[in-house]
Amino acid sequence: MAGRKSIALLTDFGPDNHYVAQMKGRVMGICPDASIVDITHSVSPQDIVQGAYLLRDSIEAFPANTIFVVVVDPGVGTDRKILVVEADAYQFVLPDNGLISVIKQDFTVRQVVAIDSSRLPASNTFHGRDIMAPVAAKLASGKLATDLGSEFPGDQVVDLDLQPVELREQSGDVQVRGQLVYSDCFGNLISNIPASILPSDRSRCTVRMGEHHWRGIHGTFSDVAKGSSLALIGSHSRLEIAVNQGNAKTELAPHHLNSVIVSWRNE
Amino acid sequence: MAGRKSIALLTDFGPDNHYVAQMKGRVMGICPDASIVDITHSVSPQDIVQGAYLLRDSIEAFPANTIFVVVVDPGVGTDRKILVVEADAYQFVLPDNGLISVIKQDFTVRQVVAIDSSRLPASNTFHGRDIMAPVAAKLASGKLATDLGSEFPGDQVVDLDLQPVELREQSGDVQVRGQLVYSDCFGNLISNIPASILPSDRSRCTVRMGEHHWRGIHGTFSDVAKGSSLALIGSHSRLEIAVNQGNAKTELAPHHLNSVIVSWRNE
Amino acid sequence: MAGRKSIALLTDFGPDNHYVAQMKGRVMGICPDASIVDITHSVSPQDIVQGAYLLRDSIEAFPANTIFVVVVDPGVGTDRKILVVEADAYQFVLPDNGLISVIKQDFTVRQVVAIDSSRLPASNTFHGRDIMAPVAAKLASGKLATDLGSEFPGDQVVDLDLQPVELREQSGDVQVRGQLVYSDCFGNLISNIPASILPSDRSRCTVRMGEHHWRGIHGTFSDVAKGSSLALIGSHSRLEIAVNQGNAKTELAPHHLNSVIVSWRNE
Repeated sequence: MAGRKSIALLTDFGPDNHYVAQMKGRVMGICPDASIVDITHSVSPQDIVQGAYLLRDSIEAFPANTIFVVVVDPGVGTDRKILVVEADAYQFVLPDNGLISVIKQDFTVRQVVAIDSSRLPASNTFHGRDIMAPVAAKLASGKLATDLGSEFPGDQVVDLDLQPVELREQSGDVQVRGQLVYSDCFGNLISNIPASILPSDRSRCTVRMGEHHWRGIHGTFSDVAKGSSLALIGSHSRLEIAVNQGNAKTELAPHHLNSVIVSWRNE
Repeated sequence: MAGRKSIALLTDFGPDNHYVAQMKGRVMGICPDASIVDITHSVSPQDIVQGAYLLRDSIEAFPANTIFVVVVDPGVGTDRKILVVEADAYQFVLPDNGLISVIKQDFTVRQVVAIDSSRLPASNTFHGRDIMAPVAAKLASGKLATDLGSEFPGDQVVDLDLQPVELREQSGDVQVRGQLVYSDCFGNLISNIPASILPSDRSRCTVRMGEHHWRGIHGTFSDVAKGSSLALIGSHSRLEIAVNQGNAKTELAPHHLNSVIVSWRNE
Repeated sequence: MAGRKSIALLTDFGPDNHYVAQMKGRVMGICPDASIVDITHSVSPQDIVQGAYLLRDSIEAFPANTIFVVVVDPGVGTDRKILVVEADAYQFVLPDNGLISVIKQDFTVRQVVAIDSSRLPASNTFHGRDIMAPVAAKLASGKLATDLGSEFPGDQVVDLDLQPVELREQSGDVQVRGQLVYSDCFGNLISNIPASILPSDRSRCTVRMGEHHWRGIHGTFSDVAKGSSLALIGSHSRLEIAVNQGNAKTELAPHHLNSVIVSWRNE
């Protein structure tokens, strides 16, 4: 099966658009044997932080050599670069606007190439179709990224101004401070706090978000009564706030990038 | 074409989610040559009855050997079983919560296997990605269901408490009582009353739903004026209530699982 | 790759439906190796003009030999014909209700065949599944359109009553009058005025739509401040009205098929 490359698409074009299909048509014209998969096209318009985390949370389910094309691109038509980033066993085709930031934290970047788009006929408003899709299809067909542009120093890539997760300890009292980074389709609130930073006995933790707080961090929704809110470790192995069989986003109405604080006492 | 298996996905994850893509990624890593198709991801959250009927109404359009993966799973994280059910020429991977009930009524169940998920690393909240998708991919790759778990008595599978369609006759007056089981994307109201139970001359029938009633059962929408409601035999060969070029769900506002009564006089 | 045919689907079934999957299932049963792609299923219900333009604007991104299946079909169940149209290197399977009108303006129609559906078992309400999908799959498998029906005079195909784009010149003053034909997923308002009819120096143009007007036609959104509206040449090489990082449809509230007038002075 070495010949069948997967291309996964993530955009903010919305579920109703006819633009993603044009990207797929371009891929099919260049690499008809590629498997094309939609991650989601419902990134909030031009929300690069949400796009960066949705990307980060999706990739590990995909096989090695998958090519991810991410179009959340408020700067289309300006001189922002389009990059091919190789990190671990994956390739990413995306604008240089911070979308790769979260990947850079968790994966090893091996190469960054800035696409030379002067060789492609392109509209000024739809680089997803005119540049990024053809680039992905060429990579899937066996082209090297360096055939399509020039290597670019990884440390000059645009970074998001992400607040890092902070851990503070004072005489045995530990406090971890992170942020909500997106809400999912069920209204679950996903934070950037990894399970690995938390103690193994999570019943000792207190979680605070705005005026809400919870005792203990659970393993699954049904640990609390239907309609009750809870803190739990979600399917991305990070702290989430959820409502069992309900919608935490509408019921708890958090602010954008709300702080989340977990505290416990080390023994 | 014997080598290309189809996997069809039906969930309540909503149209905007990034979770279905993770299920697809897992399938592609195990069986890159599978054809993966979305049925819909807009089952009302945790509505097992609707999911069971949408499944039942979709399968016959698919080729033999299609594998259906159905994730409407309010009990995720509890000890509910995950099943592989073989019925006629199809396989179904789904939680043991009643989703298979409607299939059992209309198809011949040949085998039920309870998956031994202890061999799979799984989150507590996303068994669609961690168990059901890999199971479907292994079946598509040629594994037997019994390689993945143990046979399970079909009569111990969880059943929905579905009210059966009732037919009563008294001195030539016939009454059939059924239920609305879901509304489709156009607002058409789909009942569980099969066309086969109704007389061939359907102009003699009266259909009643709540305070509404109709004379005659039609063959297509345009049999009535634009904006008028009607009873008709829909594309699933069951009785539906619709509005020609309108939306019966919003205009007639039926109750959940509303009764539908058809009556006629035998001659 | 000659063996892998693409089938692209465009309907008004909405994003939540389980009907498109039934069309795909039918295709997979007949031509398992076809690549099936969704263009969009969010055509406004029964809006043939919008469907015709969305089709026209999508096709050139697809490879030669792609088969387009378009189901916007208010006349389902009546005696309207189902056609296979060959135009340039593409095939179209669609009801004879005007959907092909815009294609006819811009591409060379080589053959029109009216499907003989009496040979297919069909419901009265779902010809997409019962006729159009099987026809597309048979074409993808190598059948000729004339194996499935009879040639039909191209000039008897139903046309939309589309107002043509008008260009008038009087002593050097030029006026082009066109219409909005649809809005896209971002709320951009797409007209039928092609860039090719406009002067190369577009800064000289004035664009008028209802009570709004703009000086100059731009190349990309970011030519104006965030939140400002503009006229630009969009990714389909036609005149569009947009709001930079906003939604022109909700902010400018145009009428359906609103007139758009571009005027300039020739030098």
